[in-house]
Parts: sequence; C-alpha cells; structure tokens
Amino acid sequence: MRVGGAEYRTIWLGEDGETVQIIDQTRLPHEFVVLDLDTVADAARAIRTMEVRGAPLIGATAAYGLALAMREDPSDSGLEAASELLRATRPTAVNLHWALDEVGRRLRDVDPAERQSLAYARAAEICDEDVAICRSIGEHGAGVIEKLAAEQDGEPVNLLTHCNAGWLATVDWGTALAPVYVAHERGIPVHVWVDETRPRNQGAGLTAWELGQHGVPHTVIADNVGGHLMQRGEVDVCVTGTDRTTATGDVANKIGTYLKALAAHDTGIPFYVALPGPTIDWNLSDGADIPIEQRDGREVSEITGITGTGAIATVRITPEGSPVANYAFDVTPARLVTGLITERGVCTASREGLTGLYPEKTG
Amino acid sequence: MRVGGAEYRTIWLGEDGETVQIIDQTRLPHEFVVLDLDTVADAARAIRTMEVRGAPLIGATAAYGLALAMREDPSDSGLEAASELLRATRPTAVNLHWALDEVGRRLRDVDPAERQSLAYARAAEICDEDVAICRSIGEHGAGVIEKLAAEQDGEPVNLLTHCNAGWLATVDWGTALAPVYVAHERGIPVHVWVDETRPRNQGAGLTAWELGQHGVPHTVIADNVGGHLMQRGEVDVCVTGTDRTTATGDVANKIGTYLKALAAHDTGIPFYVALPGPTIDWNLSDGADIPIEQRDGREVSEITGITGTGAIATVRITPEGSPVANYAFDVTPARLVTGLITERGVCTASREGLTGLYPEKTG
Repeated sequence: MRVGGAEYRTIWLGEDGETVQIIDQTRLPHEFVVLDLDTVADAARAIRTMEVRGAPLIGATAAYGLALAMREDPSDSGLEAASELLRATRPTAVNLHWALDEVGRRLRDVDPAERQSLAYARAAEICDEDVAICRSIGEHGAGVIEKLAAEQDGEPVNLLTHCNAGWLATVDWGTALAPVYVAHERGIPVHVWVDETRPRNQGAGLTAWELGQHGVPHTVIADNVGGHLMQRGEVDVCVTGTDRTTATGDVANKIGTYLKALAAHDTGIPFYVALPGPTIDWNLSDGADIPIEQRDGREVSEITGITGTGAIATVRITPEGSPVANYAFDVTPARLVTGLITERGVCTASREGLTGLYPEKTG
Repeated sequence: MRVGGAEYRTIWLGEDGETVQIIDQTRLPHEFVVLDLDTVADAARAIRTMEVRGAPLIGATAAYGLALAMREDPSDSGLEAASELLRATRPTAVNLHWALDEVGRRLRDVDPAERQSLAYARAAEICDEDVAICRSIGEHGAGVIEKLAAEQDGEPVNLLTHCNAGWLATVDWGTALAPVYVAHERGIPVHVWVDETRPRNQGAGLTAWELGQHGVPHTVIADNVGGHLMQRGEVDVCVTGTDRTTATGDVANKIGTYLKALAAHDTGIPFYVALPGPTIDWNLSDGADIPIEQRDGREVSEITGITGTGAIATVRITPEGSPVANYAFDVTPARLVTGLITERGVCTASREGLTGLYPEKTG
C-alpha cells in the first residue's frame, strides 16, 4: 500500500539481497523509519519488541529470521537454536509456529550448504503467498461492502475496526482492512471508524496512519465509543482480524473485540472477522481453551506519543503504586460472528462453514 | 475518605471559617494540591477549569461560591452578578443550576446584611445532604456486596467500575464507589477492577488514586479488558454511576458503560447503577432521547501524564491530520441493568421500580 505516495510492503530484502528490511512499527505514526535486520537476533528482537506485529507479518519475519540464521550458522544445531530463539518471542501467535515449522522442515533434510538459499527462497514465497491470501480476502470482503453500498444511495459504507489488521499487520493489503482497500480501489465510498485500541493504541497509531497514507477516509475514536455509534446507526458493518480461530469459529483477537461483537449483535449490525486460512487452529473447538497472553502493566500505565515540540515522550497516567493488569486478547464466541472472510470465500463462523471452505481439514 | 492517612471531603472551610478549600483534581493522580477559594471568581474558575468536577461537587462549589460573593458584595446586584458568573461556568450541569437557584432563592428575600451567614449555612447543608445521600447509597449497595461475599468463602468480591463515581465526584463517599467504601469499612474483602475510562482517564487517574489512598485493593485495566475478565469469572458484579437516569431506568453514563453492561448481561454477571434520586429525569422515558455531548477531539488524540523526571507533559498519539470524534456519554438500556442503587434502596431499572422508591413522582 502507499506511504507518502510510494508503494511499500512491510518486509522486503535490501539491495544486497540478504539484509531484511522492515518498517519500525513502534515509531509509527510519528516517524517512518526503515530498519535493517542483519541477524536472527535482530529478527527475534523485531518480533519481541513489536517492531513487527500482526500474525502474518510475524510469520514472515520468523521465516526470514531463519534465513538470516542460516547465513550465520547453517548447521543442525544452528537451525535448532535459531528456531527456539524465534519461537520464544510471542506465545500466542500461531503463524510464528507455522512459519518456523514450515521453513524448518524444508531445511532439516538438506545439506547445510544449501540451507541459506533455500530459506531465503521459502521466506520470499511465504511473503508472496501472504500477499495473495490477503488480496483474496480483500476481494471476498469487498463483496460484502459492495452489497451494503448498494443499499446506501451513494452514502459511504461506515465500517468499524479494532486494532490493526491492516497491511501493516501482514506483508501487504491486510486482513480486516483488505476489503476496505479493495473497495476503495473499486471506487466504493467507505469510511472507517478506527478504535484507538488500548493499551498499545494500534488503532490510533497504525490503522489511522495506514488509512491516512493510502487516502481512505477514517475517524479515530476511543474504544468506548463503538457501542454508542452502533446504537445511533452510525456503523454499517464491523470487520476485525483475528490471531487464532478455532475449528468451530470462535475468534481470539485483540482485547476488546468481544465487546464490539456484543454491541454489533445487540444492535443488529453484521460483525465479520477476516482471516487467512493458516490462522485457523483445527485442533481447538472451544475458544475458552485459548491461552491469553498477559503483558507488562506498563503498556497500560505509560503512554508514548509526540510532544508539542516534536519529541517522542512517555508519560504515566496512573497513580504511583496502583496495580495494573494487561490482558492482550479476548475470545469472541462464534455465535456473535456474522461471517468469516477467508481467502477462499465468506462462510459462517461454525465447523460446517469452515470445513465447507477447507474440506481437506474434515475428519 | 482518607488521603495519606487523613480524612478529607472534596470541599470544606479553612481555619478562618470563610475560605473554601478544595482538592485540585486536575493535578491528580500525580500531585495532591489543596486550593484556597477566596472569591466567587475563584469558585467560578474552579468549576470552569474542572479543578472540581462531578455533578454533586459542582453544585456544592457553586453554593459556596455564592457565600464567597456575599462576603464581597451582599447587595441584590452583587447576588445577581455572582449567580450569573457561576451559572456560565458549565452551562449543561444540572446540579449547578439547582444549587444556584436553591441558595439564590433563600438569599433574595432577606436583608443583605444577613446574606453571608445564611449562604454559608445553606452551602454547608447542601454538602451534608450530599454526604447523607451518598452514605445511604453506600449502605444499600453494601448489602448487595455482602450477599455476594456470603457465597465466596472469604475470597474478595471482585467489582468492576467505569469512570469516577467515587468520593472525588461528590462531597464524600461517592455514588458507585460508596458501596465499596461501606463494604470495606465493614470488613468485607473487596477488589475493584478500575476501567481506565478513555478518553479523559478518570478511572486510571481518579478512581485508582482515591481507592489507593483509602487502602482499597484495586487493579487498573484498559477499557477493553472488562469483557474478557467477565468471561473468565474474574468479575462478580459491576457498579457504575450515571449522569442521568430516565423514568424507565435507562441510564446515561460515561461512554463505554453500555459495552460493559452488554458483557455483564452476556456472562450472567449482575450490573448495578448507583445514583442519587435527584439525577432521575422523570420527564424522559426513552434513553435514546438523551442528547449526547460531543467534546473536543484533542481529549482523545492528546494524553497528559507525568514523565520519568516528574514533569507533567502532554503527548499526541494519533497521526497528524487524522480526524477524531469524541462522544462523551452513552445510554445503557434498562434491560441490561440488574438494579438501581439509590439513597432509598435498591430497585429494578424500570418505571415500576423507580416509582416504588419515589412514590411522590407517580402520575
């Protein structure tokens, strides 16, 4: 998608063909900084400190992390150590494990001397596959938006989204925002209500930034506001991403998603979740079994932004000594989800719906 | 309630018996500063700049503002000018108008020489009446907590609250938090999940501070977290305040309250709203008719806190140029409210419930 008029992906190779380059997402929206990842340790840090985030981009970065590791030490033990280092960065992300297993399996059976080029090739494929998947999610989701637009007499379709499931969370296009970008490309008028998404403000910081850079009309709101907007008819459809979907259609996503799904259900507004097939956890049939990551309370008590003089500063908003809890995800039960938008089409949030699209997963 | 071990109200008279003293709430939770109000202009500034906030405290400050004015100029024109000055501070605050009308009416018919002492006396009564109402809400609400505690085998009762409806919003005790303070006084173990309450962070800044100072166990959470905690059995009861309650039990409160009520309803957790009888709007029967204030978007895009070096600073968290919307309240329909806790007892959120407690309002 566009940044300052130029086309970008979130991860790509530098001019030397080996250095991995990423956008430092911790510095958005205030600074656009491209980082070089030269080692597997750089890749692990990028994932752990959320310089890259979003399940698909984490997977792509992990894949390139193994490629960087093979440049340093392509032995069996080097592969093992790199894989372990990367696996330990984020506990909830299913894509991380998938990418490591996928690349690792391919490398294990070949001569160490061939591992580097093979790893780079497979990482590049994983990126291209992600772009194709996201574009396809975008096309299927744009169909949903198109139908809503047809009922609206030229008025923009008002979408509400939570967190950042835009192109910054993937390699390109995004998941929840892919339908928005495709609709925008097709000339369908859209407007996006952007949940701030406390505590890390990925909505205010990332979603608003990427929509603004690409020229998509949007408005930032506090997370508390969506229910009120739905009550007053200001939202036509909700679309979020998900970190993990159970085989029965329960979706784990950024904390607060469940609250918006409840409001959509209460007010009769369709609530869609966009996801790439690989984020479906076919082994899980109850979202309540998904472990929920608890993160450092300082993400809640301390907020980073830009001061009036252009400096990046962090301020504490809670009283000294008040305990803080920071749950990162919640689970939205399938009964609150109108439909799942995948690269293979739109289905109901149910085992039947999902196996209809992914019949190879049946039984 | 206690601050640093000493008992405080939010407004009181200094040692000279005439100077009005308040806590500068704009500097909480980072600094505890007591301000002297010596003139009616001081009182007007305190209300306008939100050094005092919360409907009952605004009313009490306005009453004392008239008392300060009578010290300066007890003439008819002095009374008229003071009343106009105070009335213009927060044009939509119902308690402000009520307090000015109430004190003004009493002063108008008496000799100017008697006005000062009469105004001070009536202002003190207004404060004491508010304390009595809040204490009574606390006792009725503590009964609800006591019943929950009886089922818990000594484990703390986990309450969730939104915004600040604590003693800082009133003269003492608070509304939503009054039951917590009374339960705490009675030795019932309680723990409060404190919603941060974006965008003005009254939970993180004020509720956490007052609970901490009084020694009540609590944990600050982002507004997005409550639903997840309810799903996982970590919340036993929700209690919030309200700015306005319809005659049918719909409640307007700080934006985001509706979302927590939905989660409580979905997970079978009781959701109570605490309110003083005077905040019931007997003329309204549908919460959808309550006008919702839209405030400056900078309350969302800019956050004030304390830096690592102890300076108060403001940072912007949104991209430059991204539009921001800031709706201040939402309406929770009565069907989601388990009960209303008033100074006269607990009732269902319905016309029948309310007129049962306030029979003088029937017909």
